[in-house]
Amino acid sequence: MRDFVPSEKAHRDRVLGAIKATYREHGFDEIETPVMEDSSRLNAGLGGDNEKLAFGILKRGLTTADFAAATTNLDLIDMGLRFDLTVPLARFYATHRAELPTVFRSIQAAPVWRAERPQKGRYRQFVQCDIDVIGEGGLIAEVELIAATLATLDALGLEGATVRINDRRILTSMLSLFGFAPETHESALITIDKMDKVGQDGVLTELAEKGLPTDAIEAFFRRPMTMEFLPFGEAAIRKFTPEGIDIAPVKDLATIGDSLGELAERLTFDPFLVRGMGYYTGTIFEVAHPSVDYSLGGGGRYDGMIGRFLGTDVPAVGFSLGFERLVDLVEVAEGDQAQSIAIIFDADVDPKQLLEVKNQQIAAGNRTRLERRTKNLKPLLAQLDSEGFSGYALLSTDGLSEPRAFTARD
Amino acid sequence: MRDFVPSEKAHRDRVLGAIKATYREHGFDEIETPVMEDSSRLNAGLGGDNEKLAFGILKRGLTTADFAAATTNLDLIDMGLRFDLTVPLARFYATHRAELPTVFRSIQAAPVWRAERPQKGRYRQFVQCDIDVIGEGGLIAEVELIAATLATLDALGLEGATVRINDRRILTSMLSLFGFAPETHESALITIDKMDKVGQDGVLTELAEKGLPTDAIEAFFRRPMTMEFLPFGEAAIRKFTPEGIDIAPVKDLATIGDSLGELAERLTFDPFLVRGMGYYTGTIFEVAHPSVDYSLGGGGRYDGMIGRFLGTDVPAVGFSLGFERLVDLVEVAEGDQAQSIAIIFDADVDPKQLLEVKNQQIAAGNRTRLERRTKNLKPLLAQLDSEGFSGYALLSTDGLSEPRAFTARD
Repeated sequence: MRDFVPSEKAHRDRVLGAIKATYREHGFDEIETPVMEDSSRLNAGLGGDNEKLAFGILKRGLTTADFAAATTNLDLIDMGLRFDLTVPLARFYATHRAELPTVFRSIQAAPVWRAERPQKGRYRQFVQCDIDVIGEGGLIAEVELIAATLATLDALGLEGATVRINDRRILTSMLSLFGFAPETHESALITIDKMDKVGQDGVLTELAEKGLPTDAIEAFFRRPMTMEFLPFGEAAIRKFTPEGIDIAPVKDLATIGDSLGELAERLTFDPFLVRGMGYYTGTIFEVAHPSVDYSLGGGGRYDGMIGRFLGTDVPAVGFSLGFERLVDLVEVAEGDQAQSIAIIFDADVDPKQLLEVKNQQIAAGNRTRLERRTKNLKPLLAQLDSEGFSGYALLSTDGLSEPRAFTARD
Repeated sequence: MRDFVPSEKAHRDRVLGAIKATYREHGFDEIETPVMEDSSRLNAGLGGDNEKLAFGILKRGLTTADFAAATTNLDLIDMGLRFDLTVPLARFYATHRAELPTVFRSIQAAPVWRAERPQKGRYRQFVQCDIDVIGEGGLIAEVELIAATLATLDALGLEGATVRINDRRILTSMLSLFGFAPETHESALITIDKMDKVGQDGVLTELAEKGLPTDAIEAFFRRPMTMEFLPFGEAAIRKFTPEGIDIAPVKDLATIGDSLGELAERLTFDPFLVRGMGYYTGTIFEVAHPSVDYSLGGGGRYDGMIGRFLGTDVPAVGFSLGFERLVDLVEVAEGDQAQSIAIIFDADVDPKQLLEVKNQQIAAGNRTRLERRTKNLKPLLAQLDSEGFSGYALLSTDGLSEPRAFTARD
C-alpha cells in the first residue's frame, strides 16, 4: 500500500479523469459501492483464487470465549474488503435494478484490496477501472465494450493497444474434441492458462502429471502451420482451432470483428486465452500494448453471475483496466489550469495584509500559496518552480513587488 | 454503508469537485493515503472515542491455536480502517517530510469508517474533506484555514455559514480560575462539551456528581449580562470570559478576527466550545449554517501530534468538513457538459451499423447511449428525459432519423 504526494495524486487524478470522460462519452455511467461487502457474498465461490486474498473485518464485541470457539477465519469476520469490482456490481445490480435503465452500462473506478505477499510491482491496495454492460445478451455489448476501451486507451496516448479475444465455449469445445471429459475441463483450463509462462511443452507435462489425455492436444500443437496472414475473422479463427469444434461461438467472434470495422485490425484471436475466473460463460478478452509485456486489463461475459444474487439470470459482460499499470505508462497534459503564484512574505508582515494580498490574487484567478521568505531564496524558488508555479511576488510591509517568472531570478 | 446510483454519484462528484477546486485556489494540494493503517498507530490514544470504533483487519494465516491464545481484539488484528484523516496525515507527514514544502498545506477528501450502531443519518462509511497547514506556528495558518473554508462554503451556495471559535488555553485558564485542579481539567471539559445537549444546569449537575467544585462556575453562569452588541474582538471575548484569565490566547483570537477583515462578521466566540479530541492544543473551531441545527465541520490546532510520529514537534492546524452533510444541503450546477443523445434502434439493425452511428455521434461531441426500441416508446423516452438526455434519434435498417427533443414527442 502506498501514499501519494501531491504531484503523484495530481497525475493519477488526470489519468482517471481522462478514462472516465471517454467512458462517459460512450454512454456509461459511474456508480459507487461501499469498500466492504458481507463475507458471505465475498466468499460465495465467485472470485476464484482472489477470494482467498480478501482482507477480513473482525466482528465487533467478540469475547475470548468467541475466540476460543472459532474453527475458521469465517467464524470471526462478518465483512471483508472487496477483492474486485465485479462481485459488488452484481450485488448492486440485484439491489437497484428497478432504478436502473433496462440495459445498464456502469463505470466503476475504485480501489480493491488483496492480501498479496509484498513484492515489487504488486500492491495490496490498487485501483481498477471497470465498465460493464448488464441486461444485453446480444453481441453489441461486446462491441461497445471493446470500442469504448480502445477509445479510452487512445485518449491516454496508447494508440497501439490491441485486444486478444477467445470464447469459453470454443475452449470447452476444443477440450471435448481433444478427449477431455467434461469434469476435467476446469482443471485442464487452469493448466492451459499457464501457456504464457511455461510454453506448450510445460502445459503438456503438467496435463500428463494430472493424468489427462495429451495425445490429441500434442498433435494439435505440432501440426504444420501455413504462414499466410489472415485478417481477423472466421477463416483466421478456424486456422488456429482444431477441425470439428462448435461453430456458433466462432461465428460470434467473427461478427464482433466485422462490427468493429477498422478496429478489427487491433483484434487477435488467441485459442489459449483462458482468464482465471470461473464465472465466465462466453467471450473473454485481454488488452495489451507493445510497450509492455503484461496485460493492461481484460474481461469477458458472465451471464450466470447476477442470477446468484437476483434469482433470475441477467446477461452481463465487463472489461476491467488495471489503473496502476496505466498510470505508470502514460502522460496526460495538465489542460487549462489556473496559473499558480507564490507570495513570499517578510516575517514582519501581519496576517491581515497577507490574507488581503492572497485574496486579491485568488480574485484575479491565480491559485495562490503563501511562503515565508528564507535567507537564501534560491532553494525556495527552485522548489516552487519544480512544483509548477508560474511565478512569485515578494511582499514586505512596503507592499507587493511586481510578479516575476522563475527564469528571471535575481 | 450505502450504494450510489449514477444520479447520486454525479451529484457527489460535482460537490466534491467544487470543494477541491476552491481549496486548490487557496494554495492547498491533495494527497492520498491507504485506507488501512497499522493498528498500533490507530490505537495510539490519538483518536479519542473514535479509536474504539475502528474496524479491525484480521491477521492472515492464523490457526485455531492463535484464536484460543488471543486475549483481546488487538491480538488478532494487525491493521484497521482509518477512523479519521488526521492520524493518517500525521503518519504521512512524518514519512514524506523531505519531499514536501516547509509549510505544507494538504487537502484530503476521502472515506473514513466507524463501527457505529446503524441509525438514521449515521453511516459507517462516510467522506471527510480535510485541509491542514503543517509547519506554520503563526496565526496566519488559522486565518488561511478559516478564509479557505468560508470561501468553499460560499462556492457551494452556503453564504450564511459562520464559524464558532475558542482556544483550549482559554478553557484551561478558565477552569483554573474556577478552582479546578489541572488533573481534573480533562474530565471537566468532557462535561462542559455537553452544554449544547444538557444546558448550564445539566453541566453543573454532572460536575457536582463528579465531585468537582461548581461554585465559581455557577456564579459565572448567573452573572448579570449587558445586552450591548460587541463585534468580534478582544472586548467581546472578555465579556464572555471571567476576569483574570490568561490574556495571550484572547489576543490571538482577536488578531485572527482582525486579520480576517470583513469575514470577522462571520466569527463568533464560544467560551464553551470544547471539541472532543484530546490532541488539540490551541484554537478550536466549528462551522455552522442557519439552515441546519448541526455542525458542518470543525477543527483546531494540534501542535503536539506530529511529534508522536516524527520525534520532533511540528506545529499543525486543520479543518474538517463533513461531506455527507454538505451533499444533502447543496445544489451544484452541472456546468458545461457534453449533450447526451440516445440512439433507439430496431432489433434487426446489425451491431456494425450500431457502432458506426454511435461513433459518428461521439465524434460530433455527443455523449451517446444505445437503447433497444420498445413496443411502447413513452416509458423509455420518459426515463431518458429524467436522466438528463437532451434528445434521441431512431435507427432502423433504413438509417437514422433526425434527432428529436423530448418535448416534441410523437
